[in-house]
Amino acid sequence: MHEINPAMQECIDNCLRCYSVCLRTAMSHCLEAGGKHTEPAHFRLMMACAEICRTSAHFMLIGTDHHKHTCRECAEICTECAADCERVGNMQECVDACRSCAESCREMAA
Amino acid sequence: MHEINPAMQECIDNCLRCYSVCLRTAMSHCLEAGGKHTEPAHFRLMMACAEICRTSAHFMLIGTDHHKHTCRECAEICTECAADCERVGNMQECVDACRSCAESCREMAA
Amino acid sequence: MHEINPAMQECIDNCLRCYSVCLRTAMSHCLEAGGKHTEPAHFRLMMACAEICRTSAHFMLIGTDHHKHTCRECAEICTECAADCERVGNMQECVDACRSCAESCREMAA
Amino acid sequence: MHEINPAMQECIDNCLRCYSVCLRTAMSHCLEAGGKHTEPAHFRLMMACAEICRTSAHFMLIGTDHHKHTCRECAEICTECAADCERVGNMQECVDACRSCAESCREMAA
Repeated sequence: MHEINPAMQECIDNCLRCYSVCLRTAMSHCLEAGGKHTEPAHFRLMMACAEICRTSAHFMLIGTDHHKHTCRECAEICTECAADCERVGNMQECVDACRSCAESCREMAA
Repeated sequence: MHEINPAMQECIDNCLRCYSVCLRTAMSHCLEAGGKHTEPAHFRLMMACAEICRTSAHFMLIGTDHHKHTCRECAEICTECAADCERVGNMQECVDACRSCAESCREMAA
Repeated sequence: MHEINPAMQECIDNCLRCYSVCLRTAMSHCLEAGGKHTEPAHFRLMMACAEICRTSAHFMLIGTDHHKHTCRECAEICTECAADCERVGNMQECVDACRSCAESCREMAA
Repeated sequence: MHEINPAMQECIDNCLRCYSVCLRTAMSHCLEAGGKHTEPAHFRLMMACAEICRTSAHFMLIGTDHHKHTCRECAEICTECAADCERVGNMQECVDACRSCAESCREMAA
């Protein structure tokens, strides 16, 4: 079986974890809490973050060098999402998942 | 933060793992080996398996009861994919990921 | 180049249109209107509908016979989504897209 | 109902068309032809192209400004994919879909 670079595998895992946490949190916690949590700019950022994480993982799994570009964009969106979740408050799981993902994507993009 | 049922979280993890293993194996091992590995019926089954696993995880993360139907379909495709990977040979990682995913999807679909 | 069955091509087009309309409407109209439009059950159904449409199109494009099962599920969710959008009101574009998609998916599933 | 910018709607349509053509062609024509068509670098590029087109459409539908970055990356990958499909030959439908998509994504990224 094909070996995968351990740093890349870790980045894939971080992307899929961040995708899971952002999507689940938006669709449960945010929708149910309402107010600041469903303010369009915040909710769209959560959904964009989930999607770019899903896509970056996909690019690494496909094995294309373009993963560097999707990882760079992923790092940017995750960083922005972490800051916005911190501002909204009571979203620490998201903040942490976004930061871990941003960090490993930044390394893969280099 | 919202709590998620541990059995569902385990199923999500199994789906995302099976998605990762099938997609990565198809796009590296299978494409490079050629022959039986890129025979259209086998390769399409691998890609369909990756996609239904991705979708089933997505449905559970959205929090819709329709996840029962995507999980049922996921269990079927994973079972078929495991058998086909066994037939082709030298794909044990896929066989194992498909079987674990099929088992937990079958439980979620019940 | 490979020929595709015209009925299947039409179904793919209907799925991608329904995906587009549901996702765009949820992320613009619903988020901005709030109230009934972001009530969790309604919003989750819109997002589940967008995702199953995307997946059904993907299965037909992959060329796997399992598209019959994703199309059957797609027809069910679209039908439910059309009814719910009608109940919420002022969502005629979604109602129409869901109904057209449900109809062509039902035919592909047969 | 919410109005969408007509230039953006055209770009979404071009992305979804390019996604459809690349994925269907890879999974039917390329897999069945074999040889140059399943050479890993070419096949991976086709799949990466399909995925970035799907993602760029998704970002525009979500309504996030980050669509500019996914559109820029989409224009790059589509341009590369068009050139590679031309090199491989007998893939004019893909070449055309990739070029139309690249052009409208370049405008949306500006």
